[in-house]
Amino acid sequence: MRDSFGNAVNLTVFGESHGPAVGGVLHGLAAGLPVDEAFIARQMDKRRARGDGLTTARVEPDRVRFLSGVYKGHTTGTAIAFVLGNTNTRSQDYAALATLPRPGHADYTAQVKYGGWQDGRGGGHFSGRVTAAVVAAGALCLGVLAAHGIRVGTHIIRCAGIEGSRFAAEPDRLARQLDILDARTDGLPVLDAAFEEPMRQAIKAAAADRDSVGGVLETAVLGLPAGVGEPFFDSVESVLSHLLFSIPAVKGVEFGSGFAMADMRGSQANDPFLPWNGRIITSSNHNGGVNGGISNGMPLVLSTVIKPTASIFKEQATVDLATGQAATLQLKGRHDPCILPRARVVQDSMVALGLLDLLTQSAGLAWQQKGSEV
Amino acid sequence: MRDSFGNAVNLTVFGESHGPAVGGVLHGLAAGLPVDEAFIARQMDKRRARGDGLTTARVEPDRVRFLSGVYKGHTTGTAIAFVLGNTNTRSQDYAALATLPRPGHADYTAQVKYGGWQDGRGGGHFSGRVTAAVVAAGALCLGVLAAHGIRVGTHIIRCAGIEGSRFAAEPDRLARQLDILDARTDGLPVLDAAFEEPMRQAIKAAAADRDSVGGVLETAVLGLPAGVGEPFFDSVESVLSHLLFSIPAVKGVEFGSGFAMADMRGSQANDPFLPWNGRIITSSNHNGGVNGGISNGMPLVLSTVIKPTASIFKEQATVDLATGQAATLQLKGRHDPCILPRARVVQDSMVALGLLDLLTQSAGLAWQQKGSEV
Amino acid sequence: MRDSFGNAVNLTVFGESHGPAVGGVLHGLAAGLPVDEAFIARQMDKRRARGDGLTTARVEPDRVRFLSGVYKGHTTGTAIAFVLGNTNTRSQDYAALATLPRPGHADYTAQVKYGGWQDGRGGGHFSGRVTAAVVAAGALCLGVLAAHGIRVGTHIIRCAGIEGSRFAAEPDRLARQLDILDARTDGLPVLDAAFEEPMRQAIKAAAADRDSVGGVLETAVLGLPAGVGEPFFDSVESVLSHLLFSIPAVKGVEFGSGFAMADMRGSQANDPFLPWNGRIITSSNHNGGVNGGISNGMPLVLSTVIKPTASIFKEQATVDLATGQAATLQLKGRHDPCILPRARVVQDSMVALGLLDLLTQSAGLAWQQKGSEV
Amino acid sequence: MRDSFGNAVNLTVFGESHGPAVGGVLHGLAAGLPVDEAFIARQMDKRRARGDGLTTARVEPDRVRFLSGVYKGHTTGTAIAFVLGNTNTRSQDYAALATLPRPGHADYTAQVKYGGWQDGRGGGHFSGRVTAAVVAAGALCLGVLAAHGIRVGTHIIRCAGIEGSRFAAEPDRLARQLDILDARTDGLPVLDAAFEEPMRQAIKAAAADRDSVGGVLETAVLGLPAGVGEPFFDSVESVLSHLLFSIPAVKGVEFGSGFAMADMRGSQANDPFLPWNGRIITSSNHNGGVNGGISNGMPLVLSTVIKPTASIFKEQATVDLATGQAATLQLKGRHDPCILPRARVVQDSMVALGLLDLLTQSAGLAWQQKGSEV
Repeated sequence: MRDSFGNAVNLTVFGESHGPAVGGVLHGLAAGLPVDEAFIARQMDKRRARGDGLTTARVEPDRVRFLSGVYKGHTTGTAIAFVLGNTNTRSQDYAALATLPRPGHADYTAQVKYGGWQDGRGGGHFSGRVTAAVVAAGALCLGVLAAHGIRVGTHIIRCAGIEGSRFAAEPDRLARQLDILDARTDGLPVLDAAFEEPMRQAIKAAAADRDSVGGVLETAVLGLPAGVGEPFFDSVESVLSHLLFSIPAVKGVEFGSGFAMADMRGSQANDPFLPWNGRIITSSNHNGGVNGGISNGMPLVLSTVIKPTASIFKEQATVDLATGQAATLQLKGRHDPCILPRARVVQDSMVALGLLDLLTQSAGLAWQQKGSEV
Repeated sequence: MRDSFGNAVNLTVFGESHGPAVGGVLHGLAAGLPVDEAFIARQMDKRRARGDGLTTARVEPDRVRFLSGVYKGHTTGTAIAFVLGNTNTRSQDYAALATLPRPGHADYTAQVKYGGWQDGRGGGHFSGRVTAAVVAAGALCLGVLAAHGIRVGTHIIRCAGIEGSRFAAEPDRLARQLDILDARTDGLPVLDAAFEEPMRQAIKAAAADRDSVGGVLETAVLGLPAGVGEPFFDSVESVLSHLLFSIPAVKGVEFGSGFAMADMRGSQANDPFLPWNGRIITSSNHNGGVNGGISNGMPLVLSTVIKPTASIFKEQATVDLATGQAATLQLKGRHDPCILPRARVVQDSMVALGLLDLLTQSAGLAWQQKGSEV
Repeated sequence: MRDSFGNAVNLTVFGESHGPAVGGVLHGLAAGLPVDEAFIARQMDKRRARGDGLTTARVEPDRVRFLSGVYKGHTTGTAIAFVLGNTNTRSQDYAALATLPRPGHADYTAQVKYGGWQDGRGGGHFSGRVTAAVVAAGALCLGVLAAHGIRVGTHIIRCAGIEGSRFAAEPDRLARQLDILDARTDGLPVLDAAFEEPMRQAIKAAAADRDSVGGVLETAVLGLPAGVGEPFFDSVESVLSHLLFSIPAVKGVEFGSGFAMADMRGSQANDPFLPWNGRIITSSNHNGGVNGGISNGMPLVLSTVIKPTASIFKEQATVDLATGQAATLQLKGRHDPCILPRARVVQDSMVALGLLDLLTQSAGLAWQQKGSEV
Repeated sequence: MRDSFGNAVNLTVFGESHGPAVGGVLHGLAAGLPVDEAFIARQMDKRRARGDGLTTARVEPDRVRFLSGVYKGHTTGTAIAFVLGNTNTRSQDYAALATLPRPGHADYTAQVKYGGWQDGRGGGHFSGRVTAAVVAAGALCLGVLAAHGIRVGTHIIRCAGIEGSRFAAEPDRLARQLDILDARTDGLPVLDAAFEEPMRQAIKAAAADRDSVGGVLETAVLGLPAGVGEPFFDSVESVLSHLLFSIPAVKGVEFGSGFAMADMRGSQANDPFLPWNGRIITSSNHNGGVNGGISNGMPLVLSTVIKPTASIFKEQATVDLATGQAATLQLKGRHDPCILPRARVVQDSMVALGLLDLLTQSAGLAWQQKGSEV
């Protein structure tokens, strides 16, 4: 098990869904950075379930408690450990499932890997609950990026078969779109409100069928300087995809035009360089702001596919591990019919963590501080 | 720059396109594994350009020379260093480009990152040439996997807008498909020969237009046991995507049904478990053999999108870095109109490296040796 | 800051002396290992201060609370996070010192490194308090080693200028000596009780002078198989010294005859090989059980020098950081006149952590489990 | 096997004594640093054997050949790979030893670890020959440090039982001593020539007895700023000892007064702070320039014990691995009766590598470049 990621900036996460707490240790933040508890709380709130029919009824306050590395409202420069207590657990919902692995979940693979010793209650370490620790750490990273004028935002561009609008290529428009997403703490994070109601209806229809839906999340990073990325192996794409594929339910990651580039010719896909206001930009952004694994100064754009929630209330075929015989499974418990609204802030957090690591590797720890003085 | 990847098994790569050599250091192979030079040569040959109109005219013999870690035809257990000399370089083709960054390439981003000190000849460290070192190391990793009955194969499922056939889900048929691909050292690696000629025509048509094409490569791994993967951060998907996005030109990675899962419901996307001959399998494989970041014993299936070759002979817009003014660029040199045929063995190699690392982390170094005794 | 160490087995520590808690995250233990809370409590107890005149009056119960990775009394195979609350802190003792760095401590260097943002209360992250987390993790590692018949023990061989006796070279006698040390939870951990009273008197004499004393700790590992160590860079000596020099107050580490080898000739220092009961042993052990960075099957023997406790009650010269002027410093608070009695279990823990990491790297995770079934 | 060390700056080494080459890959140097081939050659020359009766008769030119990462006399910012061919090997000297492990060497432990697959000729990967790669990389690191006014020097303070003089505490005198050592490429690196002849005689006397001698090397670093070191685990002492114990023959490492601190009281060992010319210094340096694992701005001082060369020409007892019976061993070949003269530049190199890594972690890659512009 590798529950750590990052070089100059490194996050370790720990916890099981129904254990005492989930949490993390964040290494590599400079000393003296302000810790904005209100911002952290807002981020946690974006990930929080609401029991609104779109997300699970397991609602927890998710207060981040710092155990180290934060003093007088600022980072001390040493490891930042934090915990989030697990308060609202109903393990009895899972007792009946002990020998019936849920399709699409890690129950079976964890059983093989850990030989039955895993804490399987609520999915244990494989529960989406662990991503609360990612969001807490991500809030700190996003704060450092913001102090340098680097903004990250994620929204739903497809959900339950309904296509929404994408981020604008033009930086000023993109900035305004990120403002909109910042302000959204409720409902579906879409740019164009016209898509929200159809998506909401489609999600509710699936839920009524005891089923779930998936979709696609798009992330943009505005203000990222050129020169970020450490190829050969730590290209921007490699580092971010590593982190993004750690989010349960992500099954695909693409940068810029991604899979659509399969059908392009080089003359379409190459983004020509252009002088603009004393800088160099590209006149299109099919490469999503990354050339040769290094940022080129254009907005970084990526998408992930979020598979439909594996926990559904329909009866499913499985195998009883105790007997080796075919069995059927009927889930109870509290599950999101669609996790995209909550996953978007996890995605923001992963992107922020990866970029802060790469930036710190090349620009140094002191760089973090300079930004925060602005 | 991070030119190393892997924990228990680790590869470092080095080299510039027109420097004395490219090469690598592979750590973490057990002692006493046979080093099959003929197999290595065959793998290098698959990556080699042929000057056949599909691939570049820069043809090099690509003999792998071991400097350490191999003795009497077997691994010694210490670091395996190897080099591949760069013999066929025409740096003069690049001299004129010194201040004109090629769109879609790393020229501009390397200039920003390295401040002009990079060896830009032939793309330098960002050249596809460096992947020759990956293929050499990958051949060793594939050999260890093969000794354990784990097979890896990659083919073209889409190229220049033409869709080919995909791998079969059924293991015996998949095994026969992997045989076909093993045997293919020439031409386009497609499963169904019917697609080869149309793809070839489309590539040649693009080349005739002084342009290039992209496509999609699909990889399958047969025989991978359940239980491989080290989440939270080192899920199978995270580790493999990290490596795959290190291949120049890869802009998207998906596992199983990938982006198509966006439009599925949970009841479709969940792969139900089924008892089968004393084992547990899934009756579909939308998750590509991975649940919760850990292999489930089904074939591992993933796809990458390869963007159209950035080097095209059409005139392109760029910026002269010396003057900051708009300029046009006319490439010379030798470039593949389509790199999919050569990239497939790089993809096999990356997958083999990642899986061998994960397997060794969980099963230990001695596991590598047991297999080799078979 | 790098608060993590280890490859296959990895420990992260966090915490400040007067913050809410110290703790750690231990990665890389196999699933299903028994977690012996009584043994952990005994180890914590060995590190605990007693207010007995030899150790500080800051007495804390030091109960280890697991937050993750332990379920039903066994490891789950996922990250083991644990915390120890800081309950007995008297920050007011340190308030006066805010601008007066204590000689021999990290106050000044932390001030330079963290620019005043560090939590300096009680030495903050540089307090010996953080070693409580090392002992908790070490207890788990020692348990795994013990299940494989590998025993670790540390004792005082020199203190306050008084030389005690050393470990025996002969394995059976060494085993009995380790029994003696296991049983010792109180007083000074010395093999020969005859040395205890003189050492105790010398320590008390120093304390009466408002001063402190240092000494040398010797560690032996019995039952370590040959073949452990990962040179070139991860020799047994490199890995263990890395960990041992992380213990505050360690200023020297030597293996086997160590610095005394400076005056030997090769014919003395080389340990000749000898057949013995079907095994190969060496007839002397000047190399401390390590040849070429790899264990040779003999007892591993190493020593560390523990400098005299930096906190003394004598008046000392320092500089007032606020004014840059010379100043004098008079410490208050609760400090050990000699930390050797408490440091020995930290040393055991560091050695256990390093060896378990090296063993797991070469023997694999499954090795951990086999042992525990014995 | 872990043949890599370092975070921001990382060295991988490879090679066997009688294989085609030894070499390394150095990661993490900024772009645009001058590569001073004459300085590298001088460093290699210091490590080179001379066949002067003090060092082995295996004399090799040791020309460093860069394969990547260096272009037009400067670093490019990408991985720097280099090789040193093995030209003067006499494997026949070792053929007779195949089953007779040499006492004090890694022959036996390598046999156990690698199961007989290791390349044992000339000690293989465990030969001192591999340190040539360390010296090559170290020369680059020393160059970067020198550009920032940081100087490293190592000398013999004890050899064959003869005590020489130590470095001065006073910076200006220390600077002159480092000048003396820089100039010394021949003979014994001692500060006071009066000790050279007695040491030389003692070495020759041991050689005449077909035996070898050991000693102690002291290293000082002048100009290191305060604030370097990444505790908890990556204290200056931890990182440097890790590297120093990777040097074959090092069996002990101490900082400042080291083991002598065992008998000090805190009032002696604490180095009081003192204002001096607007800076803060300490009036003594028992802690060797390190407090709490972080440099304090005083000269960094450390010592290592180098055991007597394991290769001696006296008859020695061993075990025939083929039969398991006792045997005697009579070495042939070319071996140093004393490796201290050659080891000193390896020690300089290891210290430079470790400090450059720590400095780059805290000050960033750009820091490397600023220095080089001076």
